[in-house]
Amino acid sequence: MPESPIRKLVPYAEKALQEGKTVYHLNIGQPDIKTPSIALEAIKESSIDILAYSRSEGSEGYRKKIAAYYKKNHIDVSHNDIIVTTGGSEALLFAFGSIMDHGDEIIIPEPFYANYNGFSTASNVKVVPVISKIEDNFALPPIEAFEELITPKTKAILICNPGNPTGYLYSKEEIKKLAAIVKKHDLFLIADEVYREFAYDGSEFYSIMQEAGLENHAIMVDSVSKRYSMCGARIGYLVSRNKEFIKTALKFAQARLSPPTFAQIASEAALDTPQAYFDEVIEEYTKRRNTLISELQKIPGVKVAKPSGAFYCIAQLPIKDADHFAQWLLESFDINKQTVMVAPAAGFYSTPGVGLNQVRIAYVLNEESLKTAVQILGEALKVYKD
Amino acid sequence: MPESPIRKLVPYAEKALQEGKTVYHLNIGQPDIKTPSIALEAIKESSIDILAYSRSEGSEGYRKKIAAYYKKNHIDVSHNDIIVTTGGSEALLFAFGSIMDHGDEIIIPEPFYANYNGFSTASNVKVVPVISKIEDNFALPPIEAFEELITPKTKAILICNPGNPTGYLYSKEEIKKLAAIVKKHDLFLIADEVYREFAYDGSEFYSIMQEAGLENHAIMVDSVSKRYSMCGARIGYLVSRNKEFIKTALKFAQARLSPPTFAQIASEAALDTPQAYFDEVIEEYTKRRNTLISELQKIPGVKVAKPSGAFYCIAQLPIKDADHFAQWLLESFDINKQTVMVAPAAGFYSTPGVGLNQVRIAYVLNEESLKTAVQILGEALKVYKD
Repeated sequence: MPESPIRKLVPYAEKALQEGKTVYHLNIGQPDIKTPSIALEAIKESSIDILAYSRSEGSEGYRKKIAAYYKKNHIDVSHNDIIVTTGGSEALLFAFGSIMDHGDEIIIPEPFYANYNGFSTASNVKVVPVISKIEDNFALPPIEAFEELITPKTKAILICNPGNPTGYLYSKEEIKKLAAIVKKHDLFLIADEVYREFAYDGSEFYSIMQEAGLENHAIMVDSVSKRYSMCGARIGYLVSRNKEFIKTALKFAQARLSPPTFAQIASEAALDTPQAYFDEVIEEYTKRRNTLISELQKIPGVKVAKPSGAFYCIAQLPIKDADHFAQWLLESFDINKQTVMVAPAAGFYSTPGVGLNQVRIAYVLNEESLKTAVQILGEALKVYKD
Repeated sequence: MPESPIRKLVPYAEKALQEGKTVYHLNIGQPDIKTPSIALEAIKESSIDILAYSRSEGSEGYRKKIAAYYKKNHIDVSHNDIIVTTGGSEALLFAFGSIMDHGDEIIIPEPFYANYNGFSTASNVKVVPVISKIEDNFALPPIEAFEELITPKTKAILICNPGNPTGYLYSKEEIKKLAAIVKKHDLFLIADEVYREFAYDGSEFYSIMQEAGLENHAIMVDSVSKRYSMCGARIGYLVSRNKEFIKTALKFAQARLSPPTFAQIASEAALDTPQAYFDEVIEEYTKRRNTLISELQKIPGVKVAKPSGAFYCIAQLPIKDADHFAQWLLESFDINKQTVMVAPAAGFYSTPGVGLNQVRIAYVLNEESLKTAVQILGEALKVYKD
């Protein structure tokens, strides 16, 4: 089981705290945005006296409300196409387990969310990376790059859209290209769309579920974690119109009995969150992103891919080894007892030696903190020696 | 992925309900006992405004309280030996994933909890059953029966104690026998001890964690589901003094980020449930068990293994095919519009052809309902033709 790229740094961060330093966490995807009160209130108002198992696939009422949410988002699915899972993580595990056997392969554009490695290991399947480049802003690699990697063991292509860690938002044309590949080679197309709402600058998000002709190929993974700032709920969804797939995934769901009941109550209520909440959130993230990018671009030698979605970006730094740099920041650098924690990007690549001078930065701090954090980063780069 | 033995019957149960029949559910392990109010109140009183990820292994404070609970139960572990999981199900998945590779084998006395099959399939490992018999009340099979099955691929022995579906409570001597086998062959001994508190007639429960010399072999799976009647919380624990094992399991825990936050709040509070709650519950289950067994024994041709723990028993009926009988009960039999649903036991065996005339009965209904349900079963057996 591979270790997360951030975990290795945790002891150094803890030591920095013990030494009385303030650490600006640019490394994590835990938003500081408040959970909609409608979700939290629903739990307080619940009148449960026996906290019983729920249905393995989530209650029919809840799934119907989810289907209505998708309809508003131009995705036409029925509640029967939805399985409620314990977080997007479990949705991915069920998807992997349902469509792949030991030794099968899944193609993933890298850099990718590091835990995909963990789910692949747990499912005994092999990740085959196809490189997307910071020079291209992490756009979809050319079709040929995918086709070169397809073998008889290839079962699926997995994308994260908008992307963690890249913040890249795939265009409608790119989704159509992927659709053509999976139809031609009879593969599944799995899209992790948990950051759907986080699309900036008026960019339009296009789901794989909107693409006609993908009924038997498309598997969407979703989650309430980021959408409603309720990462601790652990509620996600697995969505597909492929009935055979849903039938198999349901067996995985039944084996683990049910998703958590209280979290479902909160998540169902969260579907009624007023639009104003999202408008404010997107406005806030847009400001944060703009501040982050403009501050980063002021630092000599820093190259940054401008994200159109999610709340991450990959920055290339004028260093050789971001692992070492990140550790050094925590251990040996501070300005007025303040330092920063970044996620070395190598852990988001599965090709060895790629991304060594890159870091992932999450803009989940307020603008002022982001500014200070990037200033500290800039000063650090002035004195850091590889 | 294998299907649960009960799922096949669900459509027939739904049809019976639609026809206006009352169905007594002897088939499920969902207790009708109230969740301790201290657990439910804790959630209502929580002042969360950002529902954030918790630690992957559960908070230190909660794990320290769990360790104190174990100490009261004569199990001496530290909070570092504990990982909080999303139900006992996930604890089993992490255990399987951490100690076994594709094609490895795990020996399980059968009949066993049907979902063990699901977790084995998900982990690509092979269940090797060793038969325990209704004639022996489902006592531990002789040591030789285990040793005959051990191959170089065998990595572990798994028991459920007290047993689902048998209700069998392993004696201290039996645990010592298992300890000797796993030490001799350097295997893991996994014990699913989620029914620990449900031991009747003053029988003493002896945990594998109490057995000296098993430090590197023993892995305990636990859950709050049945103990506090909070199956819907989805909180379990993985407990082992084997540091290498815990380190590996933690990587699985980190890949899925965290267990559900609200459920942890309720489960931590549940640890302060007053003893009177458990005394009442045990008294209630003892009465139910006694009623169930004495009523079953009145039916000609029925053989029943008297359970000393959990809230299940296996009954052998004077029929050939319990699958057919269970379906017939729902489809074609009723007394005053009332019928019963039982779980055919074949699904709890992995050896084909074994247990075909057995059913699992859960005594999670009150005494009066149990009496009525067994009377209906008796009348049904008078008229049922194989």
